Amino acid sequence: MKAVVRRGPRLLVTDVPDAVPAAGQVVARTLACGICGSDLHAVHHLEHSIEMGVRSGAADTLDPAQDLVLGHEFCAEILDYGPGTERRFRPGTRVVSTPFAFGPLGPELIGFSTRYRGAFAERLVLTEALLLEVPNGLSSAAAALTEPLAVGTHAVAVGAPDERSVALVIGCGPIGLAVIVALKRRGIGPIIAADFSPARRARAEQLGADIVVDPAIASPHASWSAFDVPATLAEMGLAQMDGRTLREAIIFECVGVPGMLQSLLENAPPGAHVVVVGACAEDDRILPVLAINKQLRFSFVFAYTPDEFAETLHALGEGIIDPDVLLTGTVGLDGTAQAFDQLASPGDNVKIIVEPWR
Amino acid sequence: MKAVVRRGPRLLVTDVPDAVPAAGQVVARTLACGICGSDLHAVHHLEHSIEMGVRSGAADTLDPAQDLVLGHEFCAEILDYGPGTERRFRPGTRVVSTPFAFGPLGPELIGFSTRYRGAFAERLVLTEALLLEVPNGLSSAAAALTEPLAVGTHAVAVGAPDERSVALVIGCGPIGLAVIVALKRRGIGPIIAADFSPARRARAEQLGADIVVDPAIASPHASWSAFDVPATLAEMGLAQMDGRTLREAIIFECVGVPGMLQSLLENAPPGAHVVVVGACAEDDRILPVLAINKQLRFSFVFAYTPDEFAETLHALGEGIIDPDVLLTGTVGLDGTAQAFDQLASPGDNVKIIVEPWR
Repeated sequence: MKAVVRRGPRLLVTDVPDAVPAAGQVVARTLACGICGSDLHAVHHLEHSIEMGVRSGAADTLDPAQDLVLGHEFCAEILDYGPGTERRFRPGTRVVSTPFAFGPLGPELIGFSTRYRGAFAERLVLTEALLLEVPNGLSSAAAALTEPLAVGTHAVAVGAPDERSVALVIGCGPIGLAVIVALKRRGIGPIIAADFSPARRARAEQLGADIVVDPAIASPHASWSAFDVPATLAEMGLAQMDGRTLREAIIFECVGVPGMLQSLLENAPPGAHVVVVGACAEDDRILPVLAINKQLRFSFVFAYTPDEFAETLHALGEGIIDPDVLLTGTVGLDGTAQAFDQLASPGDNVKIIVEPWR
Repeated sequence: MKAVVRRGPRLLVTDVPDAVPAAGQVVARTLACGICGSDLHAVHHLEHSIEMGVRSGAADTLDPAQDLVLGHEFCAEILDYGPGTERRFRPGTRVVSTPFAFGPLGPELIGFSTRYRGAFAERLVLTEALLLEVPNGLSSAAAALTEPLAVGTHAVAVGAPDERSVALVIGCGPIGLAVIVALKRRGIGPIIAADFSPARRARAEQLGADIVVDPAIASPHASWSAFDVPATLAEMGLAQMDGRTLREAIIFECVGVPGMLQSLLENAPPGAHVVVVGACAEDDRILPVLAINKQLRFSFVFAYTPDEFAETLHALGEGIIDPDVLLTGTVGLDGTAQAFDQLASPGDNVKIIVEPWR
């Protein structure tokens, strides 16, 4: 079968051995698979990603010298079942699933494993127990958004904002937009969204951000006082002495480059909860005493729970989430390498979907 | 009246103007005041501390060029009342209070303010509304421990451990020991305590730490698996596949020097909640993606709430906390400078109390 493989720091379309389901697995035909920022990173920095995983205590399941098939944001159609399966869905059923597989070393990530190939391929092997049927005729491209949108669902669940919260989303790429979607679904507001790109700011507004800020022109932290969040310790002290009820800042850091965290230590209001969704894979500098003085909290988040994934799919199926704001392009396997290049300087792009059957 | 003043980077005993209570204030005779690590830091690095405060958004209430009277862990005896007071306690009553005062710029910290002198002085001015009577004949030195012990009460309250928690306390100086006291009061265990000093490890054990570790010999993180906390992502994955109920790590960082946070990013188990109590006032390096991969949480804490302070005093009064493990020396004003020098290399010292009436 045909697949896009990463070989060294390049992507090429080539034939790979057919996907054969083992016990508990199905083989499925890929209908749609989104390109993720972590895919872009893996092409050029795979060895570094592996090192970060191993240093974090993950099982070492990836051999960078071998061809790697990326792709973990997928929707697929069941073709056939392996041994020891319950055959819960009939062949032809469209499904999504969390991109996990269960190997001898524990869970592995489909698309980041030498053993479990990803979905930039005509077919892939999935674990039957994890499959969820695509509901209500939702398009396959929209269903493939379940995975990145679930990242936003999880980030907001960990952040646990409430009616006292004022939310700031820094960075309006796919993940920042997924956070805005999840905040709106919970009725949290106001939402302030910051991005240097006018196109991304426009999408943030379409998804319901109340205020959009170009950080080149104004600090995203300039709006706190307007929403009764004390911007400084001195303001907080005075407001408390006046007996005023204060609102609290929750900040979603969705950029993930060095300097973002220190910028928050310097500029976030006291008591802010920072949910760190952007994965900065380089050394970074902070001055911790600022976080102490302000009593900041940082929750670093990754992926989602199975329940959050399923709930996000359900919301897509019910039309509660509009997928069209996020879907900005479609390519076949032959166009995948070029789409990766485009997304390196995304411009107006948010999510490009690969359709291997094209 | 006599006081220890910081003049440049030196402490000296000298006469200062008498303490005169303004509206809502009392004048009190200092009975006991503990020496805090932040006092030691202020002697040599006052300008830096002020800069950190201002960068954190605190009101600028401290002129480093003027004499400063430190001391914020105090017990005092009411001498007289200023105007506009309720005279809730009769003169002679022994009291403690949170070291706050209310100036025109908002709350200020007694002992870190040019306006509100601290308690390394024969007398000091306090806010009547904040006073708490020392209960049950508790000694004045023990009552002065309310403040540092309340820091532990607050750190544990923010950490919110429960019966699933396994606690690690890194650094067994006064604050680390205060955290152990607060954990034991909540019935949290096991408690692992780490410190390079055998004397401090012994005190941690006296206060109820279940395991004490010398980090020069063994990693404090070697014990997680023994208590069913998965030490790595791979272990967590395998345990979840086996359906095992897992315990969670809560780590109290009570050292506050560069490198501690990155060491936790590298070595803390996945899902750990790190409560950062030690204030690192220097630039520090971290590799954020490790925290993302492990979904770590960091809560930076400072001080305590008025309720936590009052509850800590109550526990001391009821004999629930044994103060003697923490009290390791007493000096008069003349011995204060030498006590500061001693605490710079603390050896067996934990808390040295200044008794200005000696």
